[in-house]
Amino acid sequence: MKHVIIGIIGAGRIGKLHADNLLKRVESAQLKAITDPYLDEAWASSLNIPLTGRDHRFMLDDPEIDAILIGSPSSEHAQQMIECAQAGKHIFCEKPIALDPNIIQNALTEVEKSGVKLQVGFNRRFDPNFAAVRKQVTSGVLGDPHVVRITSRDPAPPPAEYVTASGGLFLDMTIHDFDMARFLMGSEVTEIHAYGAVLVDPEIGKAGDIDTAVISLKFANGALGIIENSREAVYGYDQRVEVFGSKGTAMADNNTPTSMVILNESGVIRDKPLYFFLERYQAAFVAEIQAFVDAVRDDKPTPVSGKDGLAPVLVALAAQESLKTGKPVKVASV
Amino acid sequence: MKHVIIGIIGAGRIGKLHADNLLKRVESAQLKAITDPYLDEAWASSLNIPLTGRDHRFMLDDPEIDAILIGSPSSEHAQQMIECAQAGKHIFCEKPIALDPNIIQNALTEVEKSGVKLQVGFNRRFDPNFAAVRKQVTSGVLGDPHVVRITSRDPAPPPAEYVTASGGLFLDMTIHDFDMARFLMGSEVTEIHAYGAVLVDPEIGKAGDIDTAVISLKFANGALGIIENSREAVYGYDQRVEVFGSKGTAMADNNTPTSMVILNESGVIRDKPLYFFLERYQAAFVAEIQAFVDAVRDDKPTPVSGKDGLAPVLVALAAQESLKTGKPVKVASV
Amino acid sequence: MKHVIIGIIGAGRIGKLHADNLLKRVESAQLKAITDPYLDEAWASSLNIPLTGRDHRFMLDDPEIDAILIGSPSSEHAQQMIECAQAGKHIFCEKPIALDPNIIQNALTEVEKSGVKLQVGFNRRFDPNFAAVRKQVTSGVLGDPHVVRITSRDPAPPPAEYVTASGGLFLDMTIHDFDMARFLMGSEVTEIHAYGAVLVDPEIGKAGDIDTAVISLKFANGALGIIENSREAVYGYDQRVEVFGSKGTAMADNNTPTSMVILNESGVIRDKPLYFFLERYQAAFVAEIQAFVDAVRDDKPTPVSGKDGLAPVLVALAAQESLKTGKPVKVASV
Amino acid sequence: MKHVIIGIIGAGRIGKLHADNLLKRVESAQLKAITDPYLDEAWASSLNIPLTGRDHRFMLDDPEIDAILIGSPSSEHAQQMIECAQAGKHIFCEKPIALDPNIIQNALTEVEKSGVKLQVGFNRRFDPNFAAVRKQVTSGVLGDPHVVRITSRDPAPPPAEYVTASGGLFLDMTIHDFDMARFLMGSEVTEIHAYGAVLVDPEIGKAGDIDTAVISLKFANGALGIIENSREAVYGYDQRVEVFGSKGTAMADNNTPTSMVILNESGVIRDKPLYFFLERYQAAFVAEIQAFVDAVRDDKPTPVSGKDGLAPVLVALAAQESLKTGKPVKVASV
Repeated sequence: MKHVIIGIIGAGRIGKLHADNLLKRVESAQLKAITDPYLDEAWASSLNIPLTGRDHRFMLDDPEIDAILIGSPSSEHAQQMIECAQAGKHIFCEKPIALDPNIIQNALTEVEKSGVKLQVGFNRRFDPNFAAVRKQVTSGVLGDPHVVRITSRDPAPPPAEYVTASGGLFLDMTIHDFDMARFLMGSEVTEIHAYGAVLVDPEIGKAGDIDTAVISLKFANGALGIIENSREAVYGYDQRVEVFGSKGTAMADNNTPTSMVILNESGVIRDKPLYFFLERYQAAFVAEIQAFVDAVRDDKPTPVSGKDGLAPVLVALAAQESLKTGKPVKVASV
Repeated sequence: MKHVIIGIIGAGRIGKLHADNLLKRVESAQLKAITDPYLDEAWASSLNIPLTGRDHRFMLDDPEIDAILIGSPSSEHAQQMIECAQAGKHIFCEKPIALDPNIIQNALTEVEKSGVKLQVGFNRRFDPNFAAVRKQVTSGVLGDPHVVRITSRDPAPPPAEYVTASGGLFLDMTIHDFDMARFLMGSEVTEIHAYGAVLVDPEIGKAGDIDTAVISLKFANGALGIIENSREAVYGYDQRVEVFGSKGTAMADNNTPTSMVILNESGVIRDKPLYFFLERYQAAFVAEIQAFVDAVRDDKPTPVSGKDGLAPVLVALAAQESLKTGKPVKVASV
Repeated sequence: MKHVIIGIIGAGRIGKLHADNLLKRVESAQLKAITDPYLDEAWASSLNIPLTGRDHRFMLDDPEIDAILIGSPSSEHAQQMIECAQAGKHIFCEKPIALDPNIIQNALTEVEKSGVKLQVGFNRRFDPNFAAVRKQVTSGVLGDPHVVRITSRDPAPPPAEYVTASGGLFLDMTIHDFDMARFLMGSEVTEIHAYGAVLVDPEIGKAGDIDTAVISLKFANGALGIIENSREAVYGYDQRVEVFGSKGTAMADNNTPTSMVILNESGVIRDKPLYFFLERYQAAFVAEIQAFVDAVRDDKPTPVSGKDGLAPVLVALAAQESLKTGKPVKVASV
Repeated sequence: MKHVIIGIIGAGRIGKLHADNLLKRVESAQLKAITDPYLDEAWASSLNIPLTGRDHRFMLDDPEIDAILIGSPSSEHAQQMIECAQAGKHIFCEKPIALDPNIIQNALTEVEKSGVKLQVGFNRRFDPNFAAVRKQVTSGVLGDPHVVRITSRDPAPPPAEYVTASGGLFLDMTIHDFDMARFLMGSEVTEIHAYGAVLVDPEIGKAGDIDTAVISLKFANGALGIIENSREAVYGYDQRVEVFGSKGTAMADNNTPTSMVILNESGVIRDKPLYFFLERYQAAFVAEIQAFVDAVRDDKPTPVSGKDGLAPVLVALAAQESLKTGKPVKVASV
C-alpha cells in the first residue's frame, strides 16, 4: 500500500486542522509540505512537517508530491486549482472554489483537461449521522424521497464585516445546506424560493445581508425541500436533517458531548449540542481527507466532484436573486 | 357552579366524539339534545341524551339550552351559526366555518351583532404539547420568536373524491397548520409561498389537488415560518412543531402509545406515533370543549375567536393562489 | 351486553377515584351504591350515585349488586372480603388484603369456597408501559428472561407516623414492586436479599423503618432480579422497569406531561416525570376496573388473582427478615 | 513543555492500542520502545517505533525512558511493576495488578518505597459519560449520593476456557464495575451480596463460573449500590450507570454510532449501542494515557492510584465468597 504524499497551501485554521489530521488520523498519507504567507513556523516545526514556506509554488515542482490541499483564502482557490492541475497534482480544494460561477467553471475546465482528481471540501457529507441518512435513501429503505428538510443554525453571528466579504448568508453558510440537500436527495435543485430577515443583529442588516432565512426547494426528481437558517442559536450549533419518503422518514439529530441525563427539580436535562463545526464535524473532517487519499491511492473517483463545487454556488445565486426579486427563481436561469 | 346546557347539531364522527366528551369528560356541562338528519337513535339512547331529532331548529327555541355545538357538514356551518346567533345561543363551531371568506365574514357579523360567544374548533391549540410550546413564547422563555416550523403529515391519503369536495390540501389539511402557525407565533401571516407536488397518489393529482407541500410564511412581527405537509406518512400521524427564538428553541414531538424501548439485534426500537387525530388529539378535543364551557359559564372570551375562524382560510386561499401563479402572495390581497 | 352492577365500600381517596372511573370511564358497569363511615354526601350526590350509606352491609343484601369494590382501610379488607364472598358478591379488593399471611389465607379460603371472583388491586400491571414490557416476555420477543430490574421511587416521603402504621417500606411501597417483578417475570420469587438505609428522613429511622433499599431476587425459573426503592426522588415519581433476556431487553420509562423539549443556554430540557401515582397510573386505574368488570360480565378469570394478593406479602415479609438478619431469606420459610 | 518518554511491555491487543494512541492521540508523549516475546515486527516497524525487542529489561536500563506501560499478561504485572519501580520508572499498569491481594500489596509496597508514580488501567473512569456523572457527584449537583446503579453487559460470552483462566466473572468483568462504583460514589465498598446464575452458556457453568449476576453493595458513607452483569447482550455492549442522590439523579446511557432515527411501519428505530469496549471506550483509552502522561510531566498524583488497583480485587473476592456461602460478606474480612 503506497502512501499519498501531500502538500498544503494555507495554514490558517482550516489548513492547520487538515495538517493535524493528515499527520495523526489519516491512513496511507504523508504530509510533506505546507505553505502560508504568514506561516506559523513554531507550529509547523512542532509537527515536524518536512518542508515549509511562504510561497506554495515550490510544491508544484516537487515530483514526490502527489496531491495538494488548497486551504488558502477563497479568492485564491480557483487560480491555485489551475496551477495544481497544470502541474499534474491531484487537488483537494476547500469550498467555495469561488463566488463567481464563471471563475469556477474556468477552473473546472482546466482540471478536467489535466485529468487530475479534484475533491471539494463539503465535509458534512462525511458526518456519520448525515451519511447514515443518505444511506437510507440510496438503499431504498425510505422508498421514493419526497421531502428533504435541513435545519442549520450557527451558535453565534459573525462580525458584520465578515458577512460582507463572505458573499452573504447564502454563499457563506447556506452553501453547505445546498450541498447537503443535493447530497441527501441525489438530485439537482431546479428552483428555489427564499425568505430572509434580519432578526439577530441589525449590523448584519446594515451590511446588506440577512441573518435568518427559510428557503424552499424544487428538485429535478419532483421532490421538495426546505432549509432553515439562523446565524445565532444560543444553545449551540444546530445541525439536523430529515429525508421523508414513501416508506418512512430518517432524521439525524445533533451530537452532544455526553449521553448523560440529569433529573432534578428543574426538569430532565441533557447536554447542549456540540458548540460549533470544529467539534461537530471533527470526524467528518478526517473522513473527507481519508476519502480523498483513498481515491488518489486507488485511482478511484473522488466522492465530491468539481460539479459538486459549482452546483451549490448556482443555487445560492438563485436564492440571492429570489430574495432580491421576491419571486422563486429557476437555478438554470442564473 | 351553574352547568352549561348544550345542544349538538350533527351526529357524525365529530358530533359523536363531542357528545361523548360532554357526557363523560367535560365538567360543568350538560348535554341536553342532539340532532342529525340521519341520527343513529340506538347510539343516542345508549347515552341517555334527553332530546333527539332530525332537525336542529327545536333547540333554538329551547330556553334552557345555553349553547349549541355545530358539528354538521361544513357547508351548513355558516347558516346554522347565524340561526344560533339570532336565537341568542352561544356557539361552538367546527372548522372551517366556510370555504368562502365572504360567507364567513357574513356569519361573523351576525354573531357579533347578537353578542353571543363563538369558539371555532381549532382543537390542536389545546394539545398539551403544542400548548406548552405556545407558553414558552408568551412567557418569554424563547425571547423574540424568529421562526416557526410545523411538520404535519397524515397517516394515509383520503380518497381522491374526498379531496375535491374538501377544498383541497390547503383548506382541508393545512388550515390546521395555518392556525397553529398563527397561534404559536402570536402574529398574523402576511405573505405566503407554496410549492406543491403529487408524490403520494396520482389520483389526487387527477382530481386537481396536491398531496405534498412545503410552504413558507412571513409574519406581521417580522418572523418567518415553514410548514411541511404530506398526505401519507406510513409510520403514522406526524405532528411536530418548533418555535425558534432569540433565547432558545422549543419543540413538541409526536405522542406514542407507550414509553417502552426494546433493544435487540435489529436496533433500538420504540413505538410509532399514535395513528391519527382521534388518538393524538383526544385530550385536545376534551380541553377545547371544556374551555368553551368555562367561557360560557364564567362569561369570559373564548380562546379561539371568530377572527381565528376567518384568518386561516384567507391564508389557505393565498397559498392556493401562490401554487397557481408560482409566486408569493400577500394574504391581504385575497 | 349486560351491565355489571357495583357497590363500593370506602369513599376515601381511592374509593372516590374508582367511583369516578366507574361512572365516566369504565364500559358495561353501573355504580349503584357507595358507603363510608365518614361519607362525603355532597360529593356522592354530585355524582348521582343511587344509594349511599355509612355501613356497607346493606349492599350485601341487595340482589341487584353483582360485585363489590373494597376500598376501605386495609385492616378491614379481609373481613369484608369474607362477608362479600358469603353474600355471593364478586370482589375487587384494594391491596394489601392484609399484612398477616394467615389472615389473607383465611380470606382467600372463604372466597374460594364461595366461588365468587376476586381481583386484587395491583393496578400497575395495567399501566400501558409495563403491560407492553410484559407482552414482550410472553410473546417471546425477549427470549428467556434473565434479569428483571425495577426502579421505584416516590416523590416525597410520607410522615413518619404513616410509615409505622403501613407495615414499613416493604409492605407499603415495595409490595407493588414485588407484584410487578412476579408479573413481568411470570415466575415466583423464591429467595430475597435486602439492604436498607435511612438516607431521606431520620424520623423514618426513629420510627423503625428504612427509606432507601436495594433488593435482590431469585426466581423459580432461575432468573434474577433487582428492585431499588427510595421514599424521595425530588424530580417526581420514578417508575421504570426492564426485563433483560436472551434475545434482547425491554425497558419502560417514566411518563411526562408533554413531549416538549427546550434547548437554551442551560441545556436540553424536558418535562419531569408525572408527579405521583394518581397521574402516572390514571389509565391503569381505569383499565384494572375495566378488566374486573369484563371478567365478571363474561365469566372469565380475573387477571390478578387471590394468589397474587398473598404472594407479594410473603416476599415482603421475607425481605423484612433479610433486613433484620442480614442474610438472604427463602420466601418459603416465612 | 517536556515530552514524557515511554516504553511498553506487551504488544498484544491492549499494548498495540496504547502504542497507537501514544503515537497519534496523546500530547507530550513519545513512544521509544515496545517489547513482547512474540512481537509483531512488521506492525512495530510500520509505526516507526525506535526500539523493539522480546525482553523488556533493556528498557529498565535506558535512562531516557521516563515511564513504562505494562500491558503484558496479568500474571506478569506484579513482578514487572516491581522491576520498573526498582529501576525508577513511572508505571502505568493494566488491570488487574494480580488476582491475589497479597501479591498486589507486595508490588504496591515496592512502588511506594521507590517513589515512582503508578496508574492502574481502569479506563472507564475516563469515559466522558461516566466522568460527567462523577462530576455531578463531586460538584454537589446531586446532593448526598444515596444509590449507585451499574448495568454492565458484554455483547458475547468468552469461551469457557477463557473464563477459567480469568479468575471468573467477578475478577474478570465485574472488577471494572466495582471500580466504577467506588469511583462514582467516592466511597469504599464495605459489604457485598451476590446472586449468580448460568443462563447464557452451560459451558461456563461447567467451567465453574457464572454468566449472570446481580450484586448489592454497602458503602462506607452509608449509601447502597447495585451492579447487574450479563455475559451476553445480543444488542451489543450495554454500559450504563446511574447515581441517585438527595437532589436528583444522573444517568449515563450507551453510545451509538450515529444519532439517526428512522420512522417506518416497524416503529421508531435507532442505532444499537457501540459493539464492544474498543469502540465504546476509545476516547477513554486515550484520556487515561493522557492523564498519566500529564501526571508524570507535571509531577502530579495519578488519577487512578495503587489503592484503586487493590480495592476492587478485594471486593471481587468478597463477591466470590458471598456467592459461595450464600451470605453477604464484609470486604474487610477477605
